[in-house]
Amino acid sequence: MVQIPEPAKERLLHLMRILEQAGEGPLTSGEIESRTGWASHTIRKDISYLEGDFGSSSGYNIPSLTRAITESLGLNRSRKFCVVGLGRLGSAYLNFSAYQLGEFELVAGFDSSVNRVEILKSPVPLYPAYKMPEVIGRFGIELALLCVPEASAQQAAEKLAAAGIKGIVNFAPVVLDISQDIVVRNVYVADELRSLAVKITPEGNEA
Amino acid sequence: MVQIPEPAKERLLHLMRILEQAGEGPLTSGEIESRTGWASHTIRKDISYLEGDFGSSSGYNIPSLTRAITESLGLNRSRKFCVVGLGRLGSAYLNFSAYQLGEFELVAGFDSSVNRVEILKSPVPLYPAYKMPEVIGRFGIELALLCVPEASAQQAAEKLAAAGIKGIVNFAPVVLDISQDIVVRNVYVADELRSLAVKITPEGNEA
Repeated sequence: MVQIPEPAKERLLHLMRILEQAGEGPLTSGEIESRTGWASHTIRKDISYLEGDFGSSSGYNIPSLTRAITESLGLNRSRKFCVVGLGRLGSAYLNFSAYQLGEFELVAGFDSSVNRVEILKSPVPLYPAYKMPEVIGRFGIELALLCVPEASAQQAAEKLAAAGIKGIVNFAPVVLDISQDIVVRNVYVADELRSLAVKITPEGNEA
Repeated sequence: MVQIPEPAKERLLHLMRILEQAGEGPLTSGEIESRTGWASHTIRKDISYLEGDFGSSSGYNIPSLTRAITESLGLNRSRKFCVVGLGRLGSAYLNFSAYQLGEFELVAGFDSSVNRVEILKSPVPLYPAYKMPEVIGRFGIELALLCVPEASAQQAAEKLAAAGIKGIVNFAPVVLDISQDIVVRNVYVADELRSLAVKITPEGNEA
């Protein structure tokens, strides 16, 4: 299979979300450019990495393009993940529904407090943090939601890295300094609020 | 001040994050294109909406460009927000530090359970949900984190809309059907995991 460059993968994933909201289509590369600002030649190049024919003259066929992106990006198989840090945020994610988790399977939770691991009710097994290497290896866990407090985030990320995790969603407001082989995605509530703030009507414009 | 189109605002916000991670710079529009896939003419056009001179021949001056984006997007003033739904996820956000909230000020929490509102410890005042219109109006709350269960999300969003909220970060895995005047940003954990999944090393490539 063709190796798709990283920035193209990011755009294809974003494109998949646009397609999900686009209705019945077809959608032209010009329409995609006007929604995203990506150059049409970039869009056509990204789509050329996918196998199949999506009818690019009158626009792309939405269902076949979506399917091709899903397959090429490896999103058509289930992946296992764990939650690390079982305070309020972490225990909220423990209790998310299968619908909220999509194709991802939650298989374990970890916390440095043995007491918390023992008393917390959970739909999946919980383990003390020192068992991360064993449990992550045994279940083949690839991804982790890192929900520990800010002061513990770097150390916890290093333990996850040593245990063989491949990707981390980091909810602590720190930039993690770990191996570049591990993919990190930061979810900062301030960034989400900022995205809203730039779009709401400026106060001066209101009557 | 010039009215900046919505897609340009989104790109400028994203560009601001790139600038924050870019080091000392300067950064050329070509370098920005290679990181984002945005056409150079789109990038130059977006930056042309900003007031000031950023030295576009040998590259943009990072500190002045960052400052201009912050001011043009209205991110240089504090905005008030509330948390709606005080289960695990909502109460986690109640307890986020000022550092985690950036320029945003948490001023209230709401829950439909009067009992929960009375017993929950919180650094900000909590109110029963029926008080949303009054409290949101009184404090001038512009933004909300919507942390209610999936089944209540649509109704809670409608109440927020009626109370005059301008933007919602939605954590429930539903597409909200509310007035287009209200900006919605969906945070779905499955989407975050998907962003990691497409970037981790395919298993077949490992020795």
